[in-house]
Amino acid sequence: MIFTQPTHYFIVSGHAEGYSSLNAFDQALLESGVGDTNLVRMSSILPPSCQRIERIALPYGALVPVAYADMTSSVPGEVIASAVAVGIPADPELPGLIMEHHGVGTLEEIEAQVREMAVQGMAYRNREIREVVSIGAEHVVEKHGAAFAGIVLWKL
Amino acid sequence: MIFTQPTHYFIVSGHAEGYSSLNAFDQALLESGVGDTNLVRMSSILPPSCQRIERIALPYGALVPVAYADMTSSVPGEVIASAVAVGIPADPELPGLIMEHHGVGTLEEIEAQVREMAVQGMAYRNREIREVVSIGAEHVVEKHGAAFAGIVLWKL
Amino acid sequence: MIFTQPTHYFIVSGHAEGYSSLNAFDQALLESGVGDTNLVRMSSILPPSCQRIERIALPYGALVPVAYADMTSSVPGEVIASAVAVGIPADPELPGLIMEHHGVGTLEEIEAQVREMAVQGMAYRNREIREVVSIGAEHVVEKHGAAFAGIVLWKL
Repeated sequence: MIFTQPTHYFIVSGHAEGYSSLNAFDQALLESGVGDTNLVRMSSILPPSCQRIERIALPYGALVPVAYADMTSSVPGEVIASAVAVGIPADPELPGLIMEHHGVGTLEEIEAQVREMAVQGMAYRNREIREVVSIGAEHVVEKHGAAFAGIVLWKL
Repeated sequence: MIFTQPTHYFIVSGHAEGYSSLNAFDQALLESGVGDTNLVRMSSILPPSCQRIERIALPYGALVPVAYADMTSSVPGEVIASAVAVGIPADPELPGLIMEHHGVGTLEEIEAQVREMAVQGMAYRNREIREVVSIGAEHVVEKHGAAFAGIVLWKL
Repeated sequence: MIFTQPTHYFIVSGHAEGYSSLNAFDQALLESGVGDTNLVRMSSILPPSCQRIERIALPYGALVPVAYADMTSSVPGEVIASAVAVGIPADPELPGLIMEHHGVGTLEEIEAQVREMAVQGMAYRNREIREVVSIGAEHVVEKHGAAFAGIVLWKL
């Protein structure tokens, strides 16, 4: 393999206003507890036997594999949300499926949709689900806003 | 170096309908034989002496470097396609160039274009081509469709 | 950790015309001196004590973590630019913040904006700045043009 296999995961979310869309995104990462790292985006599987942990402090500037949803908007008053869900398989030797969703809408709407996407994706695989874990964030835009949700993979 | 250098590659493609655009993308990956992994997107070079192999079963949840084209659409009846091409250099000590292309159109159109892009990119380098390898997928959208094509780098 | 921690960085930029938008992007990378590698995009932190070096020749096809801005356009006569800035902290044990910006506009405009984004992001952290390092590229589009600027992380 090219990269080390992740063994643990944790879920995070946050939202923020900022000087620009990218500043808002950066501050949403800080709010989520994964700021000051280098997120490397990937699509979107929970490795077998990957254990859930509470959020840990990642080393500054570390390269961190993450599946995430993000939404930025510069439309004042707009309600935006991002959410991720992971379908955890009943069989721990099988992988789980991570889904991401974002858009204009409430967290309730966006998170319900992403959970259904995870359920549908596991059903397509005929893979029994033990539980669906999800998290998200909602933001009402003032000038430049961002909502972020992610599932961080890590190796301890 | 930060990451291990790839030594082998294989080409994949697939298409699917799904519950949402992201579900369709996920199912196109499964159809391609690279589902249930974590694709890490990169731009887009075949390392020198990188050997072509038949598609292998990647470990569940592995982080996999890949150059890919993808196209999703929710317009019923629309024909979409994705294709990738790699210009293999005559001199095995030089790198090859991977190009990606996607859009509304037939596979024939999209794949012809991506092959020409690889030819042009190698010509710009004054690098003689031994062959152009390409692959793609076409999909006629019902509700939410996806077409995917990729070149996966790996280390054996 | 999953990936090796970077220890050095260098800044690059370039612009080009090409056969297609992606060919223009590819040629802008060559012009920048990071062509013929596999860029892995990340968001966007300079690790503590990461040392600036002059641009080095990266191995062909290497997987290279980079924070970058890119802009392509196929509107003849349009002026486009991309720029990146990094806020270097006064305290070397703290991380720096990399910002990316691109758009229709001159390099002067785009680079001024990205520098301000880095300043604002460091201010949000209450983190004193030693200096702001930035680089960018501007391009006047003929048919298909690209402007690229990036901060490459590496381990020596």
